Amino acid sequence: MCDETNMTEAGTERDRGENTSKSVCVYDCRPDSSAAPGRTLDFTNMDYNGFLQALRQEFSLSTNETFVISTTDRKEIDEELYKGLVDGKTLQLLKSVDQELPMAIQERIEYLPHYHTLVQCGMYEYYASEGQKALPYAFAELVDNALSATGKNTGIRRIEIRLLFDESQGGPAVAVLDNGCGMTSKQLNNWAVYRLSKFIRENDMFHSEKPGYVRPSPVPRSLNSDISYFGVGGKQAVFYIGQSVRMISKPAGSPDVHEFVMSKDDFERKELKKENIYSGFIRNRKPGDCSHVNVSNEQFLQSIVIEEDGKESFTAVVITGIHPEHVTYLKQYFPLWTRELAHTYHYYIHGADGKDTREMRKTGNFSNIDIQISLFERSTRIPRVVNLRDVNNDMQTLYVSSSASTFEFKATGARDSLVEGLIRYHPFLYDQETYPVDPYAASAGPSEEEDDDCIVLNPEGRGKRPIFECFWNGRLIPYTSVSEFEWCKRPKKAGALPFECYNRISGVLFANDRFQVSTNKLTFMDLELQLRDKDTIFTRVNNGQEQRVKIEREFTSWLKECHERFDKQVMFQGFQGVTTREDV
Amino acid sequence: MCDETNMTEAGTERDRGENTSKSVCVYDCRPDSSAAPGRTLDFTNMDYNGFLQALRQEFSLSTNETFVISTTDRKEIDEELYKGLVDGKTLQLLKSVDQELPMAIQERIEYLPHYHTLVQCGMYEYYASEGQKALPYAFAELVDNALSATGKNTGIRRIEIRLLFDESQGGPAVAVLDNGCGMTSKQLNNWAVYRLSKFIRENDMFHSEKPGYVRPSPVPRSLNSDISYFGVGGKQAVFYIGQSVRMISKPAGSPDVHEFVMSKDDFERKELKKENIYSGFIRNRKPGDCSHVNVSNEQFLQSIVIEEDGKESFTAVVITGIHPEHVTYLKQYFPLWTRELAHTYHYYIHGADGKDTREMRKTGNFSNIDIQISLFERSTRIPRVVNLRDVNNDMQTLYVSSSASTFEFKATGARDSLVEGLIRYHPFLYDQETYPVDPYAASAGPSEEEDDDCIVLNPEGRGKRPIFECFWNGRLIPYTSVSEFEWCKRPKKAGALPFECYNRISGVLFANDRFQVSTNKLTFMDLELQLRDKDTIFTRVNNGQEQRVKIEREFTSWLKECHERFDKQVMFQGFQGVTTREDV
Ligand SMILES: Nc1ncnc2c1ncn2[C@@H]1O[C@H](COP(=O)(O)OP(=O)(O)OP(=O)(O)O)[C@@H](O)[C@H]1O
Ligand SMILES: Nc1ncnc2c1ncn2[C@@H]1O[C@H](COP(=O)(O)OP(=O)(O)OP(=O)(O)O)[C@@H](O)[C@H]1O
Ligand SMILES: [Mg+2]
Ligand SMILES: [Mg+2]
Repeated sequence: MCDETNMTEAGTERDRGENTSKSVCVYDCRPDSSAAPGRTLDFTNMDYNGFLQALRQEFSLSTNETFVISTTDRKEIDEELYKGLVDGKTLQLLKSVDQELPMAIQERIEYLPHYHTLVQCGMYEYYASEGQKALPYAFAELVDNALSATGKNTGIRRIEIRLLFDESQGGPAVAVLDNGCGMTSKQLNNWAVYRLSKFIRENDMFHSEKPGYVRPSPVPRSLNSDISYFGVGGKQAVFYIGQSVRMISKPAGSPDVHEFVMSKDDFERKELKKENIYSGFIRNRKPGDCSHVNVSNEQFLQSIVIEEDGKESFTAVVITGIHPEHVTYLKQYFPLWTRELAHTYHYYIHGADGKDTREMRKTGNFSNIDIQISLFERSTRIPRVVNLRDVNNDMQTLYVSSSASTFEFKATGARDSLVEGLIRYHPFLYDQETYPVDPYAASAGPSEEEDDDCIVLNPEGRGKRPIFECFWNGRLIPYTSVSEFEWCKRPKKAGALPFECYNRISGVLFANDRFQVSTNKLTFMDLELQLRDKDTIFTRVNNGQEQRVKIEREFTSWLKECHERFDKQVMFQGFQGVTTREDV
Repeated sequence: MCDETNMTEAGTERDRGENTSKSVCVYDCRPDSSAAPGRTLDFTNMDYNGFLQALRQEFSLSTNETFVISTTDRKEIDEELYKGLVDGKTLQLLKSVDQELPMAIQERIEYLPHYHTLVQCGMYEYYASEGQKALPYAFAELVDNALSATGKNTGIRRIEIRLLFDESQGGPAVAVLDNGCGMTSKQLNNWAVYRLSKFIRENDMFHSEKPGYVRPSPVPRSLNSDISYFGVGGKQAVFYIGQSVRMISKPAGSPDVHEFVMSKDDFERKELKKENIYSGFIRNRKPGDCSHVNVSNEQFLQSIVIEEDGKESFTAVVITGIHPEHVTYLKQYFPLWTRELAHTYHYYIHGADGKDTREMRKTGNFSNIDIQISLFERSTRIPRVVNLRDVNNDMQTLYVSSSASTFEFKATGARDSLVEGLIRYHPFLYDQETYPVDPYAASAGPSEEEDDDCIVLNPEGRGKRPIFECFWNGRLIPYTSVSEFEWCKRPKKAGALPFECYNRISGVLFANDRFQVSTNKLTFMDLELQLRDKDTIFTRVNNGQEQRVKIEREFTSWLKECHERFDKQVMFQGFQGVTTREDV
């Protein structure tokens, strides 16, 4: 009987070496044979005739009996095909090559996911309608991981993105560094396992413990730093950005640094050599030991390793093989994509109330998260550095900073699902709407009629744009927005309020982890669906107090108050008659 | 030195059996030791003391020397941890548990993708803004595969989707059947390999041949049936729809049927038993042999197997463990989602010119593709059956059937990229626009002002909707649309033509395989980007002839002609005065 446990995951692809033993599993499928397990036939070092001989013997075939030995795809193993026969194949012994099978036979197969599972996982997932905008969201996956890792830091949480584009230093490379908890070698191993999410992971090498995920307790706006979900983000991001990643990590409390490289080249090499695709080596070493770094063409790496000394714990994700078009984009649109990141993590960086540029000093609203991005182009040039906290023109900053009043609410549903929401009022002041316009948006400017040459900035406030941007566990999910709810929708019939007031509101929804997002974290799966559920209850929140009142009435009266208190229209009083200027 | 080739892909997770041999790889990391490879230490059947003994011996440790043997995560292997020590681990011999490593050591790790790679691959990929609409696109992946497989059929290409919801027959199950080329056992094995696309596949068991993908030659509208690209579609679709799939296939020219089951339960069982995750069995049997079918609870399967007799070749994809909400949706929205499929494959089903309901007989435009969907609910009830050819209200049918004239063009770019395009004119007739409205669209009806209670059907034609729906290799990519091109855009200044004419056009773009789509085939990656490239050339096509003329002028004059010939407005002539009816 064929020894099935003898086969390995990598399967028959592997053992093509000459002196390893080779066997096939042969089923007797001649018309009158009865169901029996396949038999192992060792053909190590045999020539074709020897193989036939062994076959005859195993199945007691008389010399004058005609038979055919074939693959399960009915290819007769003739002398030519025999040369290519590999270990572990299932074969069938037949009377004739096209006879019916008298009974069903089992053929063992191996179907390891192809390494493109890892290498290409990001390629087609971070698509955006027009390609380029995807890059900030790939970086966001790495920032997510750094935020998770630094979640328990007591001091500052430092996250750094370094664009190491200086070719004299071995660039281009991209490094994302954090001073978080780091990874043990087992955790680093787990990092490499595609789709091994924290919910199903065993962190201990001895598997004695059950997966130990503990859901974080609720915090305002779900800023819980718990933004890892699928076990794919880091890999997708890394292989979207480049072709190779070096993970370097030191877990707190350990004297060792663990280092692991995963690269497209490596996978290709292993495939070519028929080696195990998903086997590799972690390098365990002392901090600062860069004996393995190629000094001549990886100077940037040397710098990173040297910096390790004295750090209690950290993780560095070093990406190389950066796709050239990304290098171009990252340089050219530096302000654009850093601003997008500032927007994505606005409430992590600035705290639950966001950034109000009108306030001179920070008020209570403190965050210890420091996300810095630096671009190194030439060693002689000062790097371009931006701390995301200093970005002043991301949309959330613009919304917060032009808001005259805020209406807070809460939507609670089944299974602890919670959305905290707020609506801000951007009044009309003197001669214009103050509803902020996205300075970079293609559709900035009038969305309606473009016939006149005279373009008024933002003449209609929000216009037809959706009211709500949506955050999940505190971070922006960029491609999902919610237009409105029934209770904050412009009514059909004119009421006490001018219609324009409904165009002066912007909003934010903070969903907790009971809502699902897609694996690329670009869209929610079921936010609107859940919110429209009849069991979802909306309540107003006023000074932190929930109020079980009719939200529509509350909202309308808030909006009315905003209109009356904040909208200021220039009025011409004391009309004196018309004078026509002749001089213009 | 540790024998690295001895390790298997599944790694150390597997061999927990008692009588297999166990060894660890130990590095001497004591402060003064010099860099040396790790040594293999066999600890089969040893107790803790025996292990320590063997260790002392291997490294010539004197009895009074103190040492620590630890994991690479610095956990000391004490008597307790020793019990859980598994084969293949890397350990380090230290002087003290927190001493520095004198040199770097290599730790072999395994990082097979978790089986969620397969089981969850569809879950988060077929998201649509509101969840439900994704199901037709999961089916589309299976139809894509069936179209590819039947591409070389000489007779009819029959594709069947059966919803087997009759519980007395063992349902719910979903089966997708085609009479295509089928799969050999090797091809069936390849089917199971995630991300193994046709471009990198070796179809022959002996690997002697190079991957042999041949790009199909150009055909009108790229209806080339070559819609497989990433090696993920089938798996994503199947695990989005249910939890288990049975692939049954008979390749042309072979007497055998090959059958393979992949299921979530199976993966879970293998993980629990520490078996190889990506190993399985193909069942090879004669057609109609259902000895393996559980007659009491899989009657639907028995019927499918019995049908096999006499078929030259076929493939059946049988999905079970259907998510209950899908069953509900598929029943409840039967017309909606079948219509969506009719739309997706409109040009495959009806030929390059599409379906014109105004024509009584089919004209030249023949297609041998037959896609039928049947819903079985109760054995006593007649199944609900729709042939996609008979669907009359999918958007493309509506567009084709209300078109008065067509403007054809072509966009060619670098690397053979080709988009065939057409614009249709939907005239104003008497008292209304004939531009079709999506009968199911949420936003059907006036998009502008909703204040009046009186709703006029489609008062503004296309309105602000994009002009172009986009097809890739002939099938719809549903989430990508192209608004307009410079040359067919409504001009800023009024010209000879009324502005409304620009709202009377709809369009289709047929992109070839030089354009990229996302893995879920829901969006194009770079269609607009490539089309906006300065090297892309637009030419008008008139009666199959390309015309190198200025396309904008051509288009405008076509539009003008359409307006003059087809728009018919009711005019009141010979005004006689006003009469007020008193009787209403
Ligand atoms: N900077 C880091 N510091 C510490 N651990 C990290 C870091 N980055 C990744 N990890 C570990 O590696 C695991 C895998 O990361 P990856 O981003 O690939 O998936 P994930 O975060 O688990 O899920 P998601 O798909 O939502 O990103 C993480 O769960 C975490 O345990
Ligand atoms: N109905 C079928 N008939 C014959 N072969 C099939 C059928 N369905 C799938 N296959 C084979 O299995 C392979 C894998 O199918 P799958 O849909 O998972 O990926 P793909 O079609 O290669 O790529 P994509 O991700 O674009 O769908 C196909 O390439 C094809 O060779
Ligand atoms: Mg992550
Ligand atoms: Mg496919």
